[in-house]
Amino acid sequence: MAKTSKISPFAPAALAELPPIPGVRLAVAEAGIKYSGRTDVLLTLFPEGTEAGGVLTRSKTASAPVDWCRAQLQHGEARALVVNSGNANAFTGWRGREAVQATAKFAADAAECTPEQVFIASTGVIGEPLEASKFEAVMAKMAAEAAENRWTEAARAIMTTDTFPKLATQRAHIGGVPVTINGIAKGSGMIAPDMATMLSFIVTDAPIEGRALTKLCRQHTVPTFNSVTVDSDTSTSDTLLIFATGGAAARGARRILDPDDPDAAAFSAALLHLMHDLSMQVVKDGEGISKLMTVHVEGAESDAAARRIGLAIGNSPLVKTAIAGEDANWGRIVMAVGKSGEAANRDRLSIWFGDIQVASEGLRHPDYSEAAASEYMKRGEIEIRADVGTGGTGRATVWASDLTHEYIAINADYRS
Amino acid sequence: MAKTSKISPFAPAALAELPPIPGVRLAVAEAGIKYSGRTDVLLTLFPEGTEAGGVLTRSKTASAPVDWCRAQLQHGEARALVVNSGNANAFTGWRGREAVQATAKFAADAAECTPEQVFIASTGVIGEPLEASKFEAVMAKMAAEAAENRWTEAARAIMTTDTFPKLATQRAHIGGVPVTINGIAKGSGMIAPDMATMLSFIVTDAPIEGRALTKLCRQHTVPTFNSVTVDSDTSTSDTLLIFATGGAAARGARRILDPDDPDAAAFSAALLHLMHDLSMQVVKDGEGISKLMTVHVEGAESDAAARRIGLAIGNSPLVKTAIAGEDANWGRIVMAVGKSGEAANRDRLSIWFGDIQVASEGLRHPDYSEAAASEYMKRGEIEIRADVGTGGTGRATVWASDLTHEYIAINADYRS
Repeated sequence: MAKTSKISPFAPAALAELPPIPGVRLAVAEAGIKYSGRTDVLLTLFPEGTEAGGVLTRSKTASAPVDWCRAQLQHGEARALVVNSGNANAFTGWRGREAVQATAKFAADAAECTPEQVFIASTGVIGEPLEASKFEAVMAKMAAEAAENRWTEAARAIMTTDTFPKLATQRAHIGGVPVTINGIAKGSGMIAPDMATMLSFIVTDAPIEGRALTKLCRQHTVPTFNSVTVDSDTSTSDTLLIFATGGAAARGARRILDPDDPDAAAFSAALLHLMHDLSMQVVKDGEGISKLMTVHVEGAESDAAARRIGLAIGNSPLVKTAIAGEDANWGRIVMAVGKSGEAANRDRLSIWFGDIQVASEGLRHPDYSEAAASEYMKRGEIEIRADVGTGGTGRATVWASDLTHEYIAINADYRS
Repeated sequence: MAKTSKISPFAPAALAELPPIPGVRLAVAEAGIKYSGRTDVLLTLFPEGTEAGGVLTRSKTASAPVDWCRAQLQHGEARALVVNSGNANAFTGWRGREAVQATAKFAADAAECTPEQVFIASTGVIGEPLEASKFEAVMAKMAAEAAENRWTEAARAIMTTDTFPKLATQRAHIGGVPVTINGIAKGSGMIAPDMATMLSFIVTDAPIEGRALTKLCRQHTVPTFNSVTVDSDTSTSDTLLIFATGGAAARGARRILDPDDPDAAAFSAALLHLMHDLSMQVVKDGEGISKLMTVHVEGAESDAAARRIGLAIGNSPLVKTAIAGEDANWGRIVMAVGKSGEAANRDRLSIWFGDIQVASEGLRHPDYSEAAASEYMKRGEIEIRADVGTGGTGRATVWASDLTHEYIAINADYRS
C-alpha cells in the first residue's frame, strides 16, 4: 500500500448516493487478504434471472479471475459477484485457478446458486498466491448481512491506491418504464486503455439480455474507460461487468435483446453517461494527480487515429511532467503528435491551451504570449486542443493525469 | 536548462580519447543561442571527397534540420557539419527552413563549399524560432580555428541535459589497412527508439560510399540506439550521421560500395561496437537515472517481437519506479509482458532478476526468496530476463533507465 495518503484534489465534494436496486444485496468484510483495519472483500447477491455482460482486459498475462469471468460470460447467468482488494490473483498459475474455483464454491454455497453463476474479480499485487480460505471464513456471514443500501461500503472495499470511492447512478426509461443504473469502480494506477479501469461493476434493474449488455459495454468503453490514461500501463485484471436483474420487467419494461432496439436508446445513453462519469472518477484519482488534462484531437484521418494521437499526448512523460510543472511547453505536444505513428501534417498543425492558440499552420502562433500561456497553466484542469491538419474529420477526446513526485513516491515502493 | 546538476552515477571515470582523423577539423563557440557561459555550436570541416550516410527520426513532426539532412543524404557529399544546442529549430515552419538555409550558407562560405555540402543538426527547445544570424557572427572564426584534436570540446558543445559528454573510438582494418572510427553523441531525455539518441555523429577515414554507410547505420541502429530507452518519448530531431573521408584509400584501403563486402566485415563489426558504446552512454545518462536496467527477452515469436516486449518492460512507468525504489515487484514485469501486444504464453512465462529465478511456468518460482530478490535490487545495474514461452527463438536485449524524482525535477520545468 502506498505510504502516501494525500487525497486527490479532484475528489468529489460529496459521493453519489446510489438508490437500492430491488433484490441486489451487498455486503463487505475484512478478510485480511493484505490490508489490516479495512474492508477488502465485497459480496454482491443478485436475484434469480440476472444476466451479465462485460469486457475484460486484452492482456496476454490476464489474471485467473479474468479467465473465469470470460468463461462465465458465455452463458451470462449471474447470482453473485465476489471482489477482493490487496491481491490480484494474477500470475498465480494452477494455484490461482484453484483459488478462483474455491472462491466460487464458497460464494455459491452462501448464495445458493451454482459456482458458474458467481463472477469474481481481484485487484492488488501480482504474483502472490491468494488464500481463498480467507473468503470461506467470512462468506456465510456476509450473505446473511447483505443489504440493498451498501453501495458506498462496496465501493470502499474494492479500493487499492484509490484516494476516494467511485460511485455513479443514472435513471432512464425503457418504453416509458423507469429503470435505475448503479455503478462503482476502482483504479488509480496501472491505468491505460484495454481497459482503462481495473475494476468496474454496473447493476441495473432493466431487462436486457447478456449479449446485448456486452455489445453496449464494448461500444461505450471506447470513449470512456479506453479514453482515460494515468500511466500507460495496462492491468492484468481490468474488468468491467454489467448485471441486469430484469426487475423492471415486472413494472412493464420490455426485454431488450438488441442494443440497437429504439426502446434501448435512452438506456444506452444513460449507461454511456454513467460510464463516462465513472471513468472520469478513475482518471481524477490517477496516482499522484495534481492536474487533469483534457486532450481534444481533431483533423485526424479517423476517430481511432485521433484517439491514438490523444493517448500519445496523454501518455507522454514529457508532456505530463510539463503540465505538473505548470510549464507551457507546447513543443512537447508537437513531439507527441509526431511520435504517435498516425498521420499528421506538421505544416498544418495547430495547438491551443484552452482558448489560447499557441501554434498555427506549423509554427508558433504570431500572437503567442508566454505570459498568457503560463498563466493558463496554473489552472487545475488543462484543456489541450490539437488540429493535426490531415484534412480528415477524425476526432476524439482523451483524459489524462499529470506525472508528479507523488506518483513516484506511491510506486517506488508499492509492495512494502 | 535543468535546475538540477547531479551527475549520472554511470558517468565514465574517464572520457575516451579520440585520435585525430586527418583532414577532419573541429571548432566550437559560444553563439548565445540559449545558454550563457558555455559553448553551444559545433563546426566540423571534412576534406574533399567525404561521403555521408545516416538515419533520421521517423517523427511526423520532424525538425527543419532533419528535413535538410534527409535531402542532402540523397547525394551524400559532405564538407561541413554544424550542430547547435539550446534550440531544436523544430516546429518553426518557414522561419525554420530559412534559418537552416542561412546556416548552410554561412557554413558554406566558411568551409568554401556549397550549402548542399553542409549537414545541420539542432537540439533543444521545440517551437522557438532560431536566429541563424548568431551563427554568422562566429562561423568564420570557427573555421579559422578548427583543429583535428577538438573531439571532447565538440561532444561538450552539443550537450543539453546531458551530465557528461559522450565519446567513443574504434580501430578496424579494411583489407589489412588500419582505419579509425570516432563518434560523439548527445541525449538524455526524449529518448526512445526511432531513433533513440537525439544526435550522434560518427567520422571515419575509411573509404565507404554514402549509400553503403546508410545501410550499415540502419542495420546497426536496431540493436543499439533503437534498443535503449529513457522515457518512451521520441524526438523531432533524432539524427545519426556518419561521415567517411576516405583518407585511408591513400594508404591502400579499397573503396567499399557494398556493406556486405567481406573486406567491410571488420569495419562493420567495429562500427557496431562503437554504436553500442555510444548508445549505452546515452541511456546511462538518462535523465534522473539511478539504476540501469538490462532487459533480456527470449522465447518470443521473432527478434522484433522480443525487442517490443523488452521495450514494453523498459518503458513501463510502474517497472521503472519499482526499480528506482529497489522493490522486487516482478509482477509488474508480468503486466508489461502482457500489455506489449506481442504473443506470450502466460503459463510458460519465466522471469529472472540476475541469476535469481523469481517466476517459472506461469507462477512464482518454488524457491523464490523475497530477501534474496530484495538484496539483488540494491545493485546499480539490474538484469531482468524473461522467457515469454511461445516456443519461438526470438530474442533481444533492451537497456533502460529507471524513473526517479530527479526525472520529474528535470522535466517539470525544463524551459525556465
